[in-house]
Amino acid sequence: MPKKTGTKKTPPKKTARPRNAFYAQSGGVTAVINASAAGVIEACRRAGSRIGKVYAGRNGIVGALTEDLIDTSKESAAAIRALRHTPSGAFGSARFKLKKFEDNPAQYQRLIEVFRAHDIGYFFYNGGGDSADTCLKVSQLADNLGYPIQAIHVPKTVDNDLPITDCCPGFGSVAKYVAVSIREAGFDVASMAKTSTKVFIMEVMGRHAGWIAAAGGLAAEKEGDSPHIILFPEITFDEDKFCARVKECVEKYGYCAIVVSEGVKTADGKFLSDAGLRDAFGHAQLGGVAPVIAQLVKSKLNYKYHWAVADYLQRAARHIASKVDVEQAYAVGKAAVELALKGHNSVMPTIVRTSSSPYKWKIGMAPLDKVANQEKMLPRDYITEDGFHITAKGRRYLSPLIRGEDYPPYKDGLPQYVTLKNAPLKKKLDTPFVL
Amino acid sequence: MPKKTGTKKTPPKKTARPRNAFYAQSGGVTAVINASAAGVIEACRRAGSRIGKVYAGRNGIVGALTEDLIDTSKESAAAIRALRHTPSGAFGSARFKLKKFEDNPAQYQRLIEVFRAHDIGYFFYNGGGDSADTCLKVSQLADNLGYPIQAIHVPKTVDNDLPITDCCPGFGSVAKYVAVSIREAGFDVASMAKTSTKVFIMEVMGRHAGWIAAAGGLAAEKEGDSPHIILFPEITFDEDKFCARVKECVEKYGYCAIVVSEGVKTADGKFLSDAGLRDAFGHAQLGGVAPVIAQLVKSKLNYKYHWAVADYLQRAARHIASKVDVEQAYAVGKAAVELALKGHNSVMPTIVRTSSSPYKWKIGMAPLDKVANQEKMLPRDYITEDGFHITAKGRRYLSPLIRGEDYPPYKDGLPQYVTLKNAPLKKKLDTPFVL
Repeated sequence: MPKKTGTKKTPPKKTARPRNAFYAQSGGVTAVINASAAGVIEACRRAGSRIGKVYAGRNGIVGALTEDLIDTSKESAAAIRALRHTPSGAFGSARFKLKKFEDNPAQYQRLIEVFRAHDIGYFFYNGGGDSADTCLKVSQLADNLGYPIQAIHVPKTVDNDLPITDCCPGFGSVAKYVAVSIREAGFDVASMAKTSTKVFIMEVMGRHAGWIAAAGGLAAEKEGDSPHIILFPEITFDEDKFCARVKECVEKYGYCAIVVSEGVKTADGKFLSDAGLRDAFGHAQLGGVAPVIAQLVKSKLNYKYHWAVADYLQRAARHIASKVDVEQAYAVGKAAVELALKGHNSVMPTIVRTSSSPYKWKIGMAPLDKVANQEKMLPRDYITEDGFHITAKGRRYLSPLIRGEDYPPYKDGLPQYVTLKNAPLKKKLDTPFVL
Repeated sequence: MPKKTGTKKTPPKKTARPRNAFYAQSGGVTAVINASAAGVIEACRRAGSRIGKVYAGRNGIVGALTEDLIDTSKESAAAIRALRHTPSGAFGSARFKLKKFEDNPAQYQRLIEVFRAHDIGYFFYNGGGDSADTCLKVSQLADNLGYPIQAIHVPKTVDNDLPITDCCPGFGSVAKYVAVSIREAGFDVASMAKTSTKVFIMEVMGRHAGWIAAAGGLAAEKEGDSPHIILFPEITFDEDKFCARVKECVEKYGYCAIVVSEGVKTADGKFLSDAGLRDAFGHAQLGGVAPVIAQLVKSKLNYKYHWAVADYLQRAARHIASKVDVEQAYAVGKAAVELALKGHNSVMPTIVRTSSSPYKWKIGMAPLDKVANQEKMLPRDYITEDGFHITAKGRRYLSPLIRGEDYPPYKDGLPQYVTLKNAPLKKKLDTPFVL
């Protein structure tokens, strides 16, 4: 509230000290989740007297439960700005889901105890579907336990599986990484195919839905372009059909480039990655569907192959982040604060697509109870009828999300990512909490 | 030669038609071998009447043997310029080594037959150690078979193992990719380690020497930075020592990021990648040392892990190419033509480092018989005494090679790489050649 001047007789109104905000990162990190953090923190700083300090949870919600809070006011404006171009979770993330209130009320009582000790009135939770559920539960603390708090979920997930929002910050950058990488590898294999490698297999993330694999399809803009085949979790793997298609591609184009989702399943519903490889002691090999496909290509078709598993490289690849994605990640962080200032609780800012061509988007809002525990699956009509590629409709949806480059600064050839001081906030409770 | 005007009485001097040039790409391709191609072709075009046309071998030397030549004069100046930012081998590469002259003179006779048919007087061969040997053999055709030709080798290899030259074009870019990737993945794992992944393993190329793995070390600029451990082919893998170090890192830094060379060997001299994994039928699993290390981390230390195998992605990654590397790749292509015009035969342009700090380099020249069949190994004093990282000396050598960014142009979020027309030159021989 601005201080009134020029009316000496009225003493400046003593306002209540503004309540502090809590921010935490949850689940698997992305190339742009820190851009959302920058959006939240910078918006809170701009809010002036309406919001106090921003305390981040060290390692996500775990930091709240253990009262391990980070005082972000100790970070310089430059450091917070640098979060925009820094991948991963600067405060630490966590794979930790709160229990249902009925099953573990102690967890919620502890949260309130910590929040009350640090006068936290705003809860910004940056994560995917599970986190939306946690955020929903926290948003109900006022009703359930009489602690007033506004909980806003900030969407983040490479999996692109949150409902209502047109896309999820984090997805566009992994999508760009995958499309760029399979284009580049395709050029490589095309050069080698005459006398050497004929089949290249690139494994990408997406255990439940084929969004990321689908993004690889963007690299193929005309007949014969890499990738020639995409294997989706949505399409049951058919060995014969797959081998026939690989053969067809090698005969027609000289080589075959394949994007395979880690979530591809066989007809019996098992992950293909679990279907065969064992170590010398007979233990199932841990992870990796690409080598399984490679083995198949070798044994059934006898083509020379190479395979890659991008794993964390794909979701950490800030160096090739999508500019659209970075902007949206920042925007949802900023919007979360604005929604809180408008008095909202239990909501999530969303990306609303208003036009695909030219691509236009704006920020919307969704109630958390409509977001939590819902998965947005890849529509069947984004996948071609034969199950091996994306349709024009899928392309229309995906293409805008990878647009634009947003390079980090470099020094001596290496990207300059920020590591925050992450100064611990002094604890006020003398009760430890066992997770 | 410009036509003289104004001297009607002297007819334009009839010069001998200039001889044509042959250019071919050999072995595994890189992110910048096409920059060398651009260097060769643009220099030949600038040479005007001194060099005729540049004919490229489709799929390397195989194109010469089968008279499958590409007329590069059909490509626009813009297309040749675009080679500078296009990864892979635009004319197709080949893994094909000429036999010794004594063992297969027919191969050499065929080469001369093709060269004579197309009046080829310059042979530019763009490859690594094996290719230098092929180029050397071709350079001796004048003496051995009376066919006058100047053969110049253009250095290229991600393996950085050519002697005399300070570094090899192609290496700097894969080095940058690896250093950037392990830095990014390290940030990711650091975020997750509290409740999830504690160990990350990234496999990189380098079957015989640890140059590429060493480059990963550049990402670690201060205590605790990723990568914490590098596994080199030069250092025998010691399971106990390795596990102890992983444990130490996890306890000290919260996580452990590892770069492992595909060429790591056990005490009995076997590749670690061959040491264990089998498919369900008992066949040795094909490739991949990262999952073997992961299995070890799981079984001995019980840490949650993730692993990545970059494979072709690392050498095709033109999107994150080193500017120094691109410039050197172009420069050696250009220099090869200049050496030819000066009358040299059987030589290779080299990179000569004149200063490390600030980094300065120039083009030198090496005789091919000193280059062929030599491997430059990673010096032991570039590796720390404990065998797990690079020394300050190694860093001093490696660091300049990854400097600078040289981004390709993008459209709709994707890098725009050129695909040439690759118009076949009309065959003049009616004799097919079986490889």
